[in-house]
Amino acid sequence: MTYDPQNIFAKILRGEIPAAKVLETNHALAFLDIGPVNKGHVLVIPKAEAATLSDLPDDLAAHIGSLLPRLCRAVKTATGADALNIVVNHGEAAGQTVHHVHWHIIPRFSGDAVHWPWPHQSYAHDEMEQMRSRIAQSLDNANATDS
Amino acid sequence: MTYDPQNIFAKILRGEIPAAKVLETNHALAFLDIGPVNKGHVLVIPKAEAATLSDLPDDLAAHIGSLLPRLCRAVKTATGADALNIVVNHGEAAGQTVHHVHWHIIPRFSGDAVHWPWPHQSYAHDEMEQMRSRIAQSLDNANATDS
Repeated sequence: MTYDPQNIFAKILRGEIPAAKVLETNHALAFLDIGPVNKGHVLVIPKAEAATLSDLPDDLAAHIGSLLPRLCRAVKTATGADALNIVVNHGEAAGQTVHHVHWHIIPRFSGDAVHWPWPHQSYAHDEMEQMRSRIAQSLDNANATDS
Repeated sequence: MTYDPQNIFAKILRGEIPAAKVLETNHALAFLDIGPVNKGHVLVIPKAEAATLSDLPDDLAAHIGSLLPRLCRAVKTATGADALNIVVNHGEAAGQTVHHVHWHIIPRFSGDAVHWPWPHQSYAHDEMEQMRSRIAQSLDNANATDS
């Protein structure tokens, strides 16, 4: 996806819009979502221009990954949440609204107003093996292209 | 959270239960969810014993993070999905059912049967700054404890 440097997170990174920052490293920024699913909802973004997680270089995806355990512990402690959802919405059909890749860390409370039912489908016959093979092959093809 | 070595993902890692593997590294395994939200739904787990993302060592969280961009691209290519949700459910109140930390990579299609409404709350007065301060302080305290 083409990166639009006028998205709101790019403006936050350039200091054109304020944000309630909780953590900043050379390559990432974590701050409060201004319209939280529950209060204490944190967003984590890379400082690089990447619209989606697929567009993010592996080393930056690793860096953000490395920050998640301590951010999870801090959000849980600070909010007293029972649980957390860590979510990346990748593309509009998955709910992505700002096209700069971002991790949501969402405090969850037993009986809160968040209802995310989790449907389950099933694979027929050898459909699962076919799917496994297609994904494995897509990974292999990507490796071949990388090298 | 105490780690139960009899959970189903531990059994998969020990080879006691089969799985449709798409990617394996020295420290992580990715395989198909047998009850997918949409077909092609992949799970990524560390080989270490960690019940939740808060329990996972930073270097392993980084390793899994580094695998996500290429897994996202492969799942999208193999399924033809319009979009993806990447989700970690951390604790039962957030929907975690297997207590070995796992990333879901869920293919999404425009108009599919997944409905995850995203409520928005708002902060009153200086409530946002208080929350920011509490989370930042929890992070600082953790650093002080680490060192």
